[in-house]
Amino acid sequence: MMLCTALVFFMHLGFSFLEIGLTRQKNTINILFKNFFIISAGLVLYALIGFNLMYPASFWNGILPDYFVGLFGLESPIGKEGLDLAYNEGYTYWTDFLFQGMFAATAATIVSGAVAERAKLGSFFVFSILLIGLAYPLVGSWKWGGGFLDEWGFYDFAGSTLVHSVGGWAALLYIMKLGARIGKFDKDGKARAIPGHNLPFAAAGVLILWLGWFGFNGGSVLSADPGLTSLVLTTTSIAAAAGGLAAAGFVHIVYKNFDLTMFMNGILGGLVSITAGADLMGITDAILIGASGGVIVVLAVSLLDKLKLDDPVGAVAVHLGTGIWGTLAVGLFGSSASTDQFLIQLTGVGIVAAFCITFSWVVLTLIEKIWGLRVVREEELDGLDQAEHGGMTAYADFRMNQH
Amino acid sequence: MMLCTALVFFMHLGFSFLEIGLTRQKNTINILFKNFFIISAGLVLYALIGFNLMYPASFWNGILPDYFVGLFGLESPIGKEGLDLAYNEGYTYWTDFLFQGMFAATAATIVSGAVAERAKLGSFFVFSILLIGLAYPLVGSWKWGGGFLDEWGFYDFAGSTLVHSVGGWAALLYIMKLGARIGKFDKDGKARAIPGHNLPFAAAGVLILWLGWFGFNGGSVLSADPGLTSLVLTTTSIAAAAGGLAAAGFVHIVYKNFDLTMFMNGILGGLVSITAGADLMGITDAILIGASGGVIVVLAVSLLDKLKLDDPVGAVAVHLGTGIWGTLAVGLFGSSASTDQFLIQLTGVGIVAAFCITFSWVVLTLIEKIWGLRVVREEELDGLDQAEHGGMTAYADFRMNQH
Amino acid sequence: MMLCTALVFFMHLGFSFLEIGLTRQKNTINILFKNFFIISAGLVLYALIGFNLMYPASFWNGILPDYFVGLFGLESPIGKEGLDLAYNEGYTYWTDFLFQGMFAATAATIVSGAVAERAKLGSFFVFSILLIGLAYPLVGSWKWGGGFLDEWGFYDFAGSTLVHSVGGWAALLYIMKLGARIGKFDKDGKARAIPGHNLPFAAAGVLILWLGWFGFNGGSVLSADPGLTSLVLTTTSIAAAAGGLAAAGFVHIVYKNFDLTMFMNGILGGLVSITAGADLMGITDAILIGASGGVIVVLAVSLLDKLKLDDPVGAVAVHLGTGIWGTLAVGLFGSSASTDQFLIQLTGVGIVAAFCITFSWVVLTLIEKIWGLRVVREEELDGLDQAEHGGMTAYADFRMNQH
Repeated sequence: MMLCTALVFFMHLGFSFLEIGLTRQKNTINILFKNFFIISAGLVLYALIGFNLMYPASFWNGILPDYFVGLFGLESPIGKEGLDLAYNEGYTYWTDFLFQGMFAATAATIVSGAVAERAKLGSFFVFSILLIGLAYPLVGSWKWGGGFLDEWGFYDFAGSTLVHSVGGWAALLYIMKLGARIGKFDKDGKARAIPGHNLPFAAAGVLILWLGWFGFNGGSVLSADPGLTSLVLTTTSIAAAAGGLAAAGFVHIVYKNFDLTMFMNGILGGLVSITAGADLMGITDAILIGASGGVIVVLAVSLLDKLKLDDPVGAVAVHLGTGIWGTLAVGLFGSSASTDQFLIQLTGVGIVAAFCITFSWVVLTLIEKIWGLRVVREEELDGLDQAEHGGMTAYADFRMNQH
Repeated sequence: MMLCTALVFFMHLGFSFLEIGLTRQKNTINILFKNFFIISAGLVLYALIGFNLMYPASFWNGILPDYFVGLFGLESPIGKEGLDLAYNEGYTYWTDFLFQGMFAATAATIVSGAVAERAKLGSFFVFSILLIGLAYPLVGSWKWGGGFLDEWGFYDFAGSTLVHSVGGWAALLYIMKLGARIGKFDKDGKARAIPGHNLPFAAAGVLILWLGWFGFNGGSVLSADPGLTSLVLTTTSIAAAAGGLAAAGFVHIVYKNFDLTMFMNGILGGLVSITAGADLMGITDAILIGASGGVIVVLAVSLLDKLKLDDPVGAVAVHLGTGIWGTLAVGLFGSSASTDQFLIQLTGVGIVAAFCITFSWVVLTLIEKIWGLRVVREEELDGLDQAEHGGMTAYADFRMNQH
Repeated sequence: MMLCTALVFFMHLGFSFLEIGLTRQKNTINILFKNFFIISAGLVLYALIGFNLMYPASFWNGILPDYFVGLFGLESPIGKEGLDLAYNEGYTYWTDFLFQGMFAATAATIVSGAVAERAKLGSFFVFSILLIGLAYPLVGSWKWGGGFLDEWGFYDFAGSTLVHSVGGWAALLYIMKLGARIGKFDKDGKARAIPGHNLPFAAAGVLILWLGWFGFNGGSVLSADPGLTSLVLTTTSIAAAAGGLAAAGFVHIVYKNFDLTMFMNGILGGLVSITAGADLMGITDAILIGASGGVIVVLAVSLLDKLKLDDPVGAVAVHLGTGIWGTLAVGLFGSSASTDQFLIQLTGVGIVAAFCITFSWVVLTLIEKIWGLRVVREEELDGLDQAEHGGMTAYADFRMNQH
């Protein structure tokens, strides 16, 4: 469980590499700064607010938890006695905090990728803080905190909805408000490719994320049950593989091209798809769910282009598109398949969607009014590394093409 | 064990980084695509065919395993009851599948490096599929599936022969058929260096592979015996260190040069060398085996150059040269050393060699006839990213030297 | 514990990436070679000498340990019986060796970063060998080997003093002897920035080091006590986050700039700060210690500039500055806070300082006399890759700016 937490932490390198790799070099430092901020602020925020908001029922004796008290220095929770108070078998209070804190930061990282290359740094930080500190733990409490979605029987094993869709909806609303990067759509409204500047980083990001999913899904078993954990790792990996093959195969058939980016996004789509029900599926189920997820990613990327929505890394397609699909798939495949379950899943997806859309719209509108969401044209053209990071450049010794 | 599986999975990032780093930038996307294909197709294939081919004896009740049945959707093997059917102490059916599936993909990855920069993508995929789906599990069944090599007492702890030599023989045959890259040998037949385009990636690849070997060899203990596992990690690391120092020292004495590439290949040679007997050796044994492995790599690279065989990443030298050495070393060092054991090891090496050479020769000849093995001259000169991936470039913002 | 060892091993990739990323491309191969040497030679040396020097009390029966005997081939320690002789609950003799060997190499890696871009390779190797083989294990024996610092009650959980300050003092003395890189200070003695050539590598290095600290601190619990281990991971992560935020915030207030490098060094400063007392602190303590560590790093970097000391990667600021701070913090925060403890910590810091300064000064003076410490001016300007590695270049296909 602790090592799963380490793997989930490591996903932040995966997200950083992926986002850098698929964007232009002139925004590299900006992206890295954003990602360091998210993981750091996310952990501190989750300690201050989020953890308690998400798990109100788990407070010892129903009063302020030792942990919370400890935070403000009133009392240290960690006399050696305190440590023995593991509040669940198989993992401890601290492990759970750390694991969940990493999850919370993940939701904000999804947004980071979608708004890359034109979002104002300070405004993004404000949005992230509210997402990590309020929206994510609130939605989480409805299911993982024992709230009404849990009572209704809504199932979301490791967060297709609670993590990925939450991040995905926020990302979608943000890019709608923000507008496309300069040059993404030509005068006729046709999408143009803005190629990423470092595909090996992007590829490394995908493999690191896949590795991290071993921790993400594996750790969500919340115990050391080797049978269930190993099944979850197997379905997770098989869905990832099937998602990548399906996406790449689909693109190859349509465009006669071996498209690396789609292979990578298909893998991520397969991973997000299996996340809601990784513990309920067999191998065949995992292949079907993952492969469908891969195709959904390709279609969603194409749909966003048609809607003139600009998502440089495909975050909305991957996390929202397949997050919804994966959640619904719990009612269609595996040991839980039933009409009732499907309708509950659908209801949960809808409620979370309504909340996230409303939350994001309100918060983004406010931020837009107060600080603005987007950098000015010159800053975007020069690159954010120039504008917001004192003219640093990520690759000082290399000669670059300006564009 | 499950975390060892995660580490073995992570080796695929190591292989990708190593192969990219030691080749030219114009083939980067091609290499990444190949590697994503191998890991994805490898897992799905191993689920479809390989696992059952390799472990026929382990089927419950001697009939079709639940897993296989589940695959085709007849019956889900994973009712909660099913999960308790751990078929061995210390790890589960699923863990074993995933761990072995990762191994299978490794064999194909070895070939990928050797044939880089001129192999036709589709033809390579066909070869990989047959290698992962048939040849690897068949050879594996002779020993790890309880077959005749196992009965004879052949020893191969974690695959110096069963993984590395299988991949190495296939790589050797493939580059013999394929021919050298344009420009590798001058008119007098003298080898010219074609420098890799990103040494930090190559170095990262080596360190990630070393890390992965903790999982590769550590996981091969197939139990949580902490004494044996920790010994295996120690001999593994010491052999790697000794291999690197020996290779770099040897080159320094001969060429008066601190050669980074040889240091790295020496580490990999040390790792492959110790893999066959990592659980049987003491510290002194590990140093001697690893250091010899490092020197063997240097000599093998030089030998291949003389034979005008072109292996861009040194895969044949590392995986075949030291794979054979490591297998034989089981009969020369450590608790198993004896003339009898040495002869058994030698026999095993010979039988696997005969099979792999025959298999590779037949399959490659067929593929060559049907689709051809090699891209045309213009495509090779332009780079495979242009030819096979729609003109994508791995580093869009960087200015490059053409060569 | 074994997986912690794997994570600590992986820190060497983190250190390599960080050092490469923050320096110029013309010294990349040199840096990678250094780092491969340190990890390889470190392991072999620690097997030969260091482990026994550090843990004299742990020898079975007070005679030569099996392990040592085994090393010289007199007797293999690893008959299957030997393996059962776990000499402590929770981990084995071998695990401990490997874990400590990785620690030893870490101390030398710290020095490597500080002396980058101008130190003579061979001389650095000699110094590293003496540091890993003698100084580090000797200092370690005073505390972790049950020596006088341990008897006095000096506390250093995972090495703020024993690892980081030892490396940090050696680095400080080395850069004092070595002098600044050409061009680091202008004619008026004012520091000029020499920008690193690959910030994504540096950022990846920091995240990998953070991950490695999960193993570094987590493994130092030296048992599988899940309560204590999970607390340690939590305080470690929170201190890292607080360190990064404090450093970046401090710089933003003073210089109106979002400084990525300082964010990264602040994270590392937070990690080093918490290392001495990660098992004694609550969340509030961790935030305060980490945040102070982050600010200390910023101030220390500025102080070194004023003293005209040139440390390309900030190793002295990070490892020595916050290594001292973290050690003293054990007497100021958490369950151990007391005037007595603070004075003991201060005494320990002073004794280790005195020893390391003396050791480094003597050894460096000798090496300087015999071989010289620094490459000649032309070699430094051309880059060490040209001078010491046969004209190899790390990025053969990329066009570079010369500087």
